[in-house]
Amino acid sequence: MRTILWEDGKVVYLNQRKLPKQLEYVCCDDYQRIAKAIKTLEIRGAPAIGVAAAMGLALVAYNSRAKGREELLRRLEQASCVLRKTRPTAYNLFWAIDRVNTKVASTPGTVEEVRSTVIAEALAIGKEDLQTNKMIGINGASLIEDGDVVGTICNAGWLATSGEYGTALSVIKIAHEQGKRVSVIALETRPILQGARLTAFELKQDKIDVRVIPDGAIGYCFSKRMIDKFICGADRIIVSSGGHVINKVGTNTVSIVAKHYKIPFYVAAPLSTFDFNSSLKDVIIEERDPREVAEIFGRRIIPEGVSVFNPAFDITSPRLVEAIITERGIIHPPFKKEAENLLKLKIRPLNF
Amino acid sequence: MRTILWEDGKVVYLNQRKLPKQLEYVCCDDYQRIAKAIKTLEIRGAPAIGVAAAMGLALVAYNSRAKGREELLRRLEQASCVLRKTRPTAYNLFWAIDRVNTKVASTPGTVEEVRSTVIAEALAIGKEDLQTNKMIGINGASLIEDGDVVGTICNAGWLATSGEYGTALSVIKIAHEQGKRVSVIALETRPILQGARLTAFELKQDKIDVRVIPDGAIGYCFSKRMIDKFICGADRIIVSSGGHVINKVGTNTVSIVAKHYKIPFYVAAPLSTFDFNSSLKDVIIEERDPREVAEIFGRRIIPEGVSVFNPAFDITSPRLVEAIITERGIIHPPFKKEAENLLKLKIRPLNF
Repeated sequence: MRTILWEDGKVVYLNQRKLPKQLEYVCCDDYQRIAKAIKTLEIRGAPAIGVAAAMGLALVAYNSRAKGREELLRRLEQASCVLRKTRPTAYNLFWAIDRVNTKVASTPGTVEEVRSTVIAEALAIGKEDLQTNKMIGINGASLIEDGDVVGTICNAGWLATSGEYGTALSVIKIAHEQGKRVSVIALETRPILQGARLTAFELKQDKIDVRVIPDGAIGYCFSKRMIDKFICGADRIIVSSGGHVINKVGTNTVSIVAKHYKIPFYVAAPLSTFDFNSSLKDVIIEERDPREVAEIFGRRIIPEGVSVFNPAFDITSPRLVEAIITERGIIHPPFKKEAENLLKLKIRPLNF
Repeated sequence: MRTILWEDGKVVYLNQRKLPKQLEYVCCDDYQRIAKAIKTLEIRGAPAIGVAAAMGLALVAYNSRAKGREELLRRLEQASCVLRKTRPTAYNLFWAIDRVNTKVASTPGTVEEVRSTVIAEALAIGKEDLQTNKMIGINGASLIEDGDVVGTICNAGWLATSGEYGTALSVIKIAHEQGKRVSVIALETRPILQGARLTAFELKQDKIDVRVIPDGAIGYCFSKRMIDKFICGADRIIVSSGGHVINKVGTNTVSIVAKHYKIPFYVAAPLSTFDFNSSLKDVIIEERDPREVAEIFGRRIIPEGVSVFNPAFDITSPRLVEAIITERGIIHPPFKKEAENLLKLKIRPLNF
């Protein structure tokens, strides 16, 4: 299954807000609609957001009536600016926009040539994401033993990426394909319930046994040794600080409790999630609409006039992370050095 | 405000399932209705459950047409058996039923005398609970400094007790009454949302500033030093094991994260919550209906066919607890010795 597709000059994406009740694909030809979809979590998950932003730029290029190269570049710059502002935390968003713009800048040529460059680069980002995720799964599956119960938070499956495998769930799916018996305990992941809605939906489709728990129950599950390993995705990994992992709020809580009970805590993420430029203090933790917490199905659960604090992410110390699973291999602390080495690796294009 | 009252041979209780939307008091004259109210969480909170069970026995005594003492004792025994089975974890339930039965056994006399003994003892348990909670607040308020932000989970306020102050929230309310500036960060407490629905409602009534967070956000709040102290209630404290605290699921998770960030973690509970008889392995952690997690407002959030694990409680190690605040004083580790000493204290009846 795919989350975002390019079809004859239109972008078709899966509206994740409607899941698991409804499998609704939205077709659009306007990058502003993509921006809105990212903001409202119709499109979510760091790799998927990156692909969507690139596809948004492809829409600009495809539909532009610019007469000259410079005019098209200005339109792309405007759209990049809008797309960058959709969400502040996930690094893949900025990585994908930068990648398209860098490619354009380094490609001389006419309007037509810029147009095809942007579209080709966006499609390449989407296609590579699929390959990358499969490699994450293949690399990570070596950590999974027959009979393992794996904990996970939020959704780091195909829904969070371009499609097919995902990141953290790719590890589980590949292990499952390899014939290992593996089952999952998924944190429901308030407030948006990505675990209950999306991870459960996805694993059920793949016939992998999954149980949902309230987020607070993770300590009890660890204490009863109900979980052998924990694997989550990431929205941004800060390399300069040694590998702080920014991910869905609750991840840091889980990582501390995992350490307490000596349960290995792994992060699965593509190199496009590694931020080699920012320092930890540059990171903006997005605070989202209080109504995400205060209302469920449009009905208020908290008394009127009571306020809410709704950070979308938190920060996990690299000291709590056993290893990070990437498409180029599994890295261990010190993550900074190992991540830099991975980047330097000369890798042949992957073929599947 | 009161949660449970005895009015002319009837029990009037506040239906907590309807809060914060509706303040509905239910009037009943049948102990089976009380049993059902405890099971379905219309009445909840360890001290409130204890008072309700005693009131249930009072209803049996009041309405019985037993001709002799023995017949009434048999009816009380039957009702005790039904009430004991309503919920397995909160100790106050068993403590209150035992207290009424022990009083009856040690009181010779006619049917009429047994009848009045049971009713008087049930009313005494309710009245003492109010006094006990106020003393917990007075003792605990010494720990609160001006400007403190206090974290709490579930609801350990007047709604969880006979009324007025509560246990953990009593500490906050008394500090507030003493003129200290104190505000609260309340975990919403999935799946039943007692924090979002009840604690927020209660503190708003008392004009104490409160913010609600998703349960997973506690690590982020601690990491940002947004919380100075954490105080929760308890459903049972196992004395023989050194003071393991059984409380709402999520409490253990919070206690581990609090320790990690060196945030003091306190428990506020009356001595009626201290189990001096059981060992840790005797404790039953209630698993509740999966629909509490899988459905919200009757709408399913998890795909059909996906299972749920819904433990209502978890177990916090005494090593993670800074102190336990009781009506007879604040105790520190080793809790076993200090709790036994508290029990031996000769205390004058409290007068308010």
